[in-house]
Amino acid sequence: MSTKKLGNQTIAFSSPPSIIGYGNAVGKKEGEGPLSSYFDYICPDDAFNEDSWEKAESTMQKKALSYAMKLANTSATNIDYICGGDLLNQCIATGYSVRSQKIPFFGLYGACSTMAESLILASMILDGKFGEKVVAMTSSHFCSAERQYRTPLEYGGQRTPTAQWTTTGSGAVVLCEHGSGPYITHATVGKIVDKGITDVNNMGAAMAPSAYHTLRTHFEDTGRSPSDYDLIVTGDLGALGKEIVIDFFSKDGVNLQANYNDCGVLLFDLEKQDMHAGGSGCGCSAVVLTGYLLKEMHLGRWNNILFCGTGALHSPTSIMQGESIPGICHAVAISSKKGAMQHG
Amino acid sequence: MSTKKLGNQTIAFSSPPSIIGYGNAVGKKEGEGPLSSYFDYICPDDAFNEDSWEKAESTMQKKALSYAMKLANTSATNIDYICGGDLLNQCIATGYSVRSQKIPFFGLYGACSTMAESLILASMILDGKFGEKVVAMTSSHFCSAERQYRTPLEYGGQRTPTAQWTTTGSGAVVLCEHGSGPYITHATVGKIVDKGITDVNNMGAAMAPSAYHTLRTHFEDTGRSPSDYDLIVTGDLGALGKEIVIDFFSKDGVNLQANYNDCGVLLFDLEKQDMHAGGSGCGCSAVVLTGYLLKEMHLGRWNNILFCGTGALHSPTSIMQGESIPGICHAVAISSKKGAMQHG
Repeated sequence: MSTKKLGNQTIAFSSPPSIIGYGNAVGKKEGEGPLSSYFDYICPDDAFNEDSWEKAESTMQKKALSYAMKLANTSATNIDYICGGDLLNQCIATGYSVRSQKIPFFGLYGACSTMAESLILASMILDGKFGEKVVAMTSSHFCSAERQYRTPLEYGGQRTPTAQWTTTGSGAVVLCEHGSGPYITHATVGKIVDKGITDVNNMGAAMAPSAYHTLRTHFEDTGRSPSDYDLIVTGDLGALGKEIVIDFFSKDGVNLQANYNDCGVLLFDLEKQDMHAGGSGCGCSAVVLTGYLLKEMHLGRWNNILFCGTGALHSPTSIMQGESIPGICHAVAISSKKGAMQHG
Repeated sequence: MSTKKLGNQTIAFSSPPSIIGYGNAVGKKEGEGPLSSYFDYICPDDAFNEDSWEKAESTMQKKALSYAMKLANTSATNIDYICGGDLLNQCIATGYSVRSQKIPFFGLYGACSTMAESLILASMILDGKFGEKVVAMTSSHFCSAERQYRTPLEYGGQRTPTAQWTTTGSGAVVLCEHGSGPYITHATVGKIVDKGITDVNNMGAAMAPSAYHTLRTHFEDTGRSPSDYDLIVTGDLGALGKEIVIDFFSKDGVNLQANYNDCGVLLFDLEKQDMHAGGSGCGCSAVVLTGYLLKEMHLGRWNNILFCGTGALHSPTSIMQGESIPGICHAVAISSKKGAMQHG
């Protein structure tokens, strides 16, 4: 029998890894939003001094990693592994950013759930005693994503009200087998959930059922309730997807309104910045985590958060072939203490 | 200090996971090659009864998984996690095949190194006591890969002499915390190596330096020499890449000729089947492992093999932007015994 599993899908780490460093870099719009003061680097033109959007995304990732390593007071030679990925075809933003690092590399693809997926695998590696320090990182870039998933920017296409805005941002976290916290204490690894949504301009609705499934499983497996967390945050469901998750829980008689939010809603001022349903992309949850969430935890605002990365595992080709959008959500419990829960 | 690391990049598993099941499904050309008798399912037209090549690849993956679970005498409800990925944009072959399984999922992208990457992460999960059974799987399909990476099949493009042939095939392995072997005893996690090759029709040359780097590191970290293995096999370097690896080692005074081969060379009769430099793709090493290698280990032909997945982390976009091809190689030591090495 396995000793570190709770219920069906949840891991309780026996030596919860500590977050010892985190960093990020974002684009202009993200730097104009309500979380502006939490970011390490804001690029005024999203180009990061590169001559293509794809190279800009790689360079942005390198910046986020360097801020994270600096805060962790460590360097590449002391990192055992990097776990990371991005949204681009063949995950090139990550491949080309890791190329310069000389660090053993596990490439991941979890769509916009990648920040949570990489945190979970990094924590498993540390708790399993396979190394001392592991980096979890990801990125997305509005311009490289538009070119690849939608239409070239030059077309000036109109967006529907339910559409989201791919975040230009990268976040990196350095995890260590020891440290003063915050700690990753639990993780619920998601299953794919697909309720038949085919509208790529309504990703919140496509991903919300997987978020609901993982959250419900997390509470069942751990015996916890939503009120045990100071904050529950999904990755990039946006305003509509967030409402769907609240609605699902209210049908179960659970009120999620008090302490639940979504990174895609937090990152932008949806009305003033004309953001429609909100932010999305791997970078969305990554920069909200490494900016707002971890910095406010450090200041004592929250002691226990449940960070839930949400991803849509489709491609333009699968949608053209009439397929629906499979969703996945991974939940990561982050606590200022290793042991029993204490509220902020 | 970490206890399970040897040297810089190698893991020595404290409770080596056992391979309790493996299965595969391949296309017509693979079924006409020298390893034909080792495959569980050969599709006569590569379509797997689907109406697109991408859906065919997903269905092929499901077939490989079902053969692996059958041999392991288990079902989806007893599998804790699937670790897998493929070559298609956004890894849709894997996303859509896992959708029907209701198993917690870690999506990976390691290009053609994915079979080795998934075996390593699955082994870490089991050795870390996060579950009892984990699946590692991957696939590639000649027709979906040609459409995405090169030109539509209908163009009838000519291939250069150094070009390889993307394998139509999927392989799945069920790993368990206990079992009668073979066991995964060691893993060397690769760093990205890029020597500046830009020719996508010469992937063997692009990936060979990373294979050399990982192999040399494996021997340094473990204190082993090539002759400690009955067989050392790279994933898909093809005939040219294989020669480059042999050449690199001969410059170090090490003769690799006696017991080294490449899955891309083993899978096809290069001349008779007009295969140019040989097979490639995630599926290449996956079907040679789950066909030829594990079946011959079971029959006692080899006791110790070193399985080295090789991947090229570029994309058509990165190549069009003038970038070179980053390579990565992960090595997995598979032994019929948990303890000291014994030769077959």
